[in-house]
Amino acid sequence: MGEIIYLTSKENNIIKIFRKLSVSKRERAESGKFVTEGARITADAIRHGFAETVLVTRQALDRYADDFPKKFRESCRVYGISDELAEKISLTESAQGVFAVCRVPEKTDTPLKADGKYVVLFGLQDPGNVGMIIRTADAMGVDGVLMCGSCELYAPKTVRATMGSIFRTDVRVFSDEEELFGSLKKSGVVTSASVLSEDSRDICNCSFSGGQAVFLGNEGSGLPNSVSERCDRRIKIPMHGSVNSLNVAMAGGIFMWEMTREIKNG
Amino acid sequence: MGEIIYLTSKENNIIKIFRKLSVSKRERAESGKFVTEGARITADAIRHGFAETVLVTRQALDRYADDFPKKFRESCRVYGISDELAEKISLTESAQGVFAVCRVPEKTDTPLKADGKYVVLFGLQDPGNVGMIIRTADAMGVDGVLMCGSCELYAPKTVRATMGSIFRTDVRVFSDEEELFGSLKKSGVVTSASVLSEDSRDICNCSFSGGQAVFLGNEGSGLPNSVSERCDRRIKIPMHGSVNSLNVAMAGGIFMWEMTREIKNG
Repeated sequence: MGEIIYLTSKENNIIKIFRKLSVSKRERAESGKFVTEGARITADAIRHGFAETVLVTRQALDRYADDFPKKFRESCRVYGISDELAEKISLTESAQGVFAVCRVPEKTDTPLKADGKYVVLFGLQDPGNVGMIIRTADAMGVDGVLMCGSCELYAPKTVRATMGSIFRTDVRVFSDEEELFGSLKKSGVVTSASVLSEDSRDICNCSFSGGQAVFLGNEGSGLPNSVSERCDRRIKIPMHGSVNSLNVAMAGGIFMWEMTREIKNG
Repeated sequence: MGEIIYLTSKENNIIKIFRKLSVSKRERAESGKFVTEGARITADAIRHGFAETVLVTRQALDRYADDFPKKFRESCRVYGISDELAEKISLTESAQGVFAVCRVPEKTDTPLKADGKYVVLFGLQDPGNVGMIIRTADAMGVDGVLMCGSCELYAPKTVRATMGSIFRTDVRVFSDEEELFGSLKKSGVVTSASVLSEDSRDICNCSFSGGQAVFLGNEGSGLPNSVSERCDRRIKIPMHGSVNSLNVAMAGGIFMWEMTREIKNG
């Protein structure tokens, strides 16, 4: 550990950058960087090549040694920080003393897969929901999560809620509806709007074979009519309780499960 | 609105009781009462006969008039409170000015249904997860949620996370493993432990016909081996990502969806 440089001043430039990135959306957008906090998620960021700079307390380096890929010190810059400094830059209640500055990957121009399974987050506002959906997409083996007009993907709350799945999942952010539908159209996948309207088809009676993209809408207001009508079909999960009784992330999980079901069965 | 008595002092006994119930688990256990906060959930509490005392600001009474069952003033005591008082007793960031003291229903001795679909929460610690599972159970039309060794059902955070489904769902709290398995055995339902072990059966290849109870374990450590072995079978959701990528509430949602699927299909 002798090789690690220890930072002690909160006036240090690296610390200043970290703090700015953790509170300012603008800073993240302009620099194309974001932060992680926590041992496991930071280890995932390193493993998948997202981490540029890692900040870690002496104690954490001992405690979480197993979580870190052996050669992580070669793939990114590692600095030691004091417990005091860790507490200062932490955004969580129980700081683990492990942080990283990561770079936002460049926008891909790889087309969506013609036979891919996608979930589209259109106007979702809760970072916990977005994170949970990305986490579940990873578990289900969905091909990608497409975001449009939703909360910021790289905000610390969203990143944390993905539990590291943000580094393992193809998540794409579209600037507007046109770009999104353009991409979907080019791939030829079937688009389905999740809406609780009378003419929505019950997903128990829907086929999800071939390329599929299911649209989920805002927590309060759902999908705009214009978007729902632009989709190939409208679908719904049959429900017993009240409208309130299915959270959008949970609904997303059920859709992803149904979409990937045929693959799992065969 | 002339009939409503307005409370203004935080020394008022009703206010004191509310505050105690909202912070003290012991107080809730001893009195058999708990609290709700928010317009919709309180309306649900009134509608389903759980609310004893309702506290509401003048503004909230106007704003949420549609949410309240017409005769709610006949079914429970209603007191007006000042905005200041509402802010004082609120546990949330955006107080809506609607609160209630509710009674915990008496422990039922109705047996579990022989053909019922149940989810068992064994050692779950996160109120958000427990709430989300109860909310989803309501949506899916599951027959009941059985809790054992989990976080407190009537804590304000858990109640809030159910989004009102706590009043529409048969949620039973068992004092220990023996009482729980006794009840399950009597009903004759098939018990399945959700565990990620090698010999767990993939739920795509499992039948969930007839009476079923699926056990979910603690967020960090899962189900104890002893409990898992006591169940009739061990099952798992096939997973593509890492162990971390499926949250327990999401897993619960998928199990409930699969359990009730055959019923939905006809």
